[in-house]
Amino acid sequence: MQIPDMQGPVCPMPLKHENQIVMGHGSGGKMSQELIQRVFQSEFTSDALLAGNDFAYLSSDGGRLVTSVDAHIVFPLFFPGGDIGKLAICGTVNDVAVSGAIPRYITAAFILEEGLDIAILKKIVHSMQLTALEAGVEIVAGDTKVVEKGKADGVFITTTGIGFVPQGRTIHGANAQPGDQILISGNLGDHGIAVLAARGDLGFETGVQSDAAPLNHMIEQLLQAAPNVHVLRDPTRGGLATTLNEIAAQSNVGMLLDESSMPIQQAVRAASDMLGFDPLYIANEGKVIVIVPPNEKDAALQALRAHPYGKDAALIGEITSEHPKRVLLKTFIGGTRMLDVMAGEMLPRIC
Amino acid sequence: MQIPDMQGPVCPMPLKHENQIVMGHGSGGKMSQELIQRVFQSEFTSDALLAGNDFAYLSSDGGRLVTSVDAHIVFPLFFPGGDIGKLAICGTVNDVAVSGAIPRYITAAFILEEGLDIAILKKIVHSMQLTALEAGVEIVAGDTKVVEKGKADGVFITTTGIGFVPQGRTIHGANAQPGDQILISGNLGDHGIAVLAARGDLGFETGVQSDAAPLNHMIEQLLQAAPNVHVLRDPTRGGLATTLNEIAAQSNVGMLLDESSMPIQQAVRAASDMLGFDPLYIANEGKVIVIVPPNEKDAALQALRAHPYGKDAALIGEITSEHPKRVLLKTFIGGTRMLDVMAGEMLPRIC
Repeated sequence: MQIPDMQGPVCPMPLKHENQIVMGHGSGGKMSQELIQRVFQSEFTSDALLAGNDFAYLSSDGGRLVTSVDAHIVFPLFFPGGDIGKLAICGTVNDVAVSGAIPRYITAAFILEEGLDIAILKKIVHSMQLTALEAGVEIVAGDTKVVEKGKADGVFITTTGIGFVPQGRTIHGANAQPGDQILISGNLGDHGIAVLAARGDLGFETGVQSDAAPLNHMIEQLLQAAPNVHVLRDPTRGGLATTLNEIAAQSNVGMLLDESSMPIQQAVRAASDMLGFDPLYIANEGKVIVIVPPNEKDAALQALRAHPYGKDAALIGEITSEHPKRVLLKTFIGGTRMLDVMAGEMLPRIC
Repeated sequence: MQIPDMQGPVCPMPLKHENQIVMGHGSGGKMSQELIQRVFQSEFTSDALLAGNDFAYLSSDGGRLVTSVDAHIVFPLFFPGGDIGKLAICGTVNDVAVSGAIPRYITAAFILEEGLDIAILKKIVHSMQLTALEAGVEIVAGDTKVVEKGKADGVFITTTGIGFVPQGRTIHGANAQPGDQILISGNLGDHGIAVLAARGDLGFETGVQSDAAPLNHMIEQLLQAAPNVHVLRDPTRGGLATTLNEIAAQSNVGMLLDESSMPIQQAVRAASDMLGFDPLYIANEGKVIVIVPPNEKDAALQALRAHPYGKDAALIGEITSEHPKRVLLKTFIGGTRMLDVMAGEMLPRIC
């Protein structure tokens, strides 16, 4: 007969603290250290982090320094094809990569809601580390804060990226020229529909997966093949239509898009139709808009399609000198309509 | 007689959107753009931000690149001597400066709660810009997200700082040597007590102001006067005691502090006594610990005291080879007690 252990578990804190976030995890003291060791240091192993300072020394690759920041508040935390951790790395890696830079470093700050299961946090942190490894970026600095139950929503993650632009690259939202061709690296609207489905807001199954992906390696292949790319940008919140409007305004050019060439998978089109959404305004998290001079269009398309994340890449329109700062769409039925910036909120908390 | 304007105000949105944060402000579309123009672009005027990309090109000063990140969740948003905006700049500027770097750039991400008064947000953003100007840092990239009422608490601000270490400086938490002298740049515990008072948790008036301040200029003066400083660190969450324990562990040294030399103002001591707190564990937001070889102690103290933020600087102890990784305090009454890392949560949401 086995004798029960009368001492109980040898743990310094009540069970609750072992499994859930409590305010003490945000104290900056012993419990914060334990949380960092248990959850973060087992995944994030940068020398800069392990040095234990509140700052990280970085190596410069040479080239122009670039940074970008995004707060991530997606709800729910997990959705088909991704989670808030993957999203937090992809979003920032992609924002740095569309500058023409090679992303190298990430800082990550976590705002945790009291009561969050530590198992959920571990899953998110693991997902971040997997995505960082794929992208080849190092998580070099971090911070963790805790707020009372009901003062946040599970986890919010803010990531800042740092990268370096190799000599000779000048990619910028203001560089689009009349005659340039507009490419998109794949199907539109997958992320938004996947998150909506995860919320149960659709009322039906779609099978659509978020496209969340780190695009830096694909972009690097693209820039090797088409070194004179003028503009790169990832169409996240506000979707393709809003992002193209931003570029049209920055470059003071017009755009003419062809609706029939837009790559949109059938399930996304069907879900959008039922909900009254336009897929051109739905957020993407693993797509890039490429604006390229006509003589490099074919090389660019080929380079995109050679990468798994770009296999559905398509030519979707061109830059015009007419109607500057306006984006027009040639519709299926032969008419033309203006695509404006998204007005209000279509899908809250999508990223 | 003046004829009233029967058309009413020429505004494209209902009044509510004009004065309060709504979910549409987080859409990435038109309302987001309006919010950015109204609230952020009137304060943050970096060329990098105005370029309108999702990334910022930065200039490198040469020297070693350094970064640091902090999420700020202080409650309440405003307190005597500061607010969350000032804190968000000071916290990150100071974390970069204690590496020996000159802080240059800041990224800032805002998580806004639906219903927040835009006037409050403007006040916070203005405070950030004033503090950034004082510190000489540029806010180069930003992001704004909105969550539903009850899913955040007014505003959370995450800031990442980027700076450059001039040639020849090697400041690090692992560099403390036996015999080194331990200095603190001024009075301890002011920030924590000021925030508690603002919450109404004290039940009495204190007149204590937060010490929140950007310390980079004072640190620069210090390093000119005492170029062989071994360690710098700002004692924020967990206070002086927790921060010194971290350094003792990193450097594998002991510390012996002198309680009678601790600069603590009377009002902080009185409030702490009544609440049962130890001021050595209370957060500071405008203080720096300086660990310096004995031959540079006087120059360091003089340099600190020459700066307004360092006028109450004091010598508080020394590094020992005995009892490595332990911080001991020689008490008023002549005994010695161990100062451990703070165990749980003393003052939640202090920064």
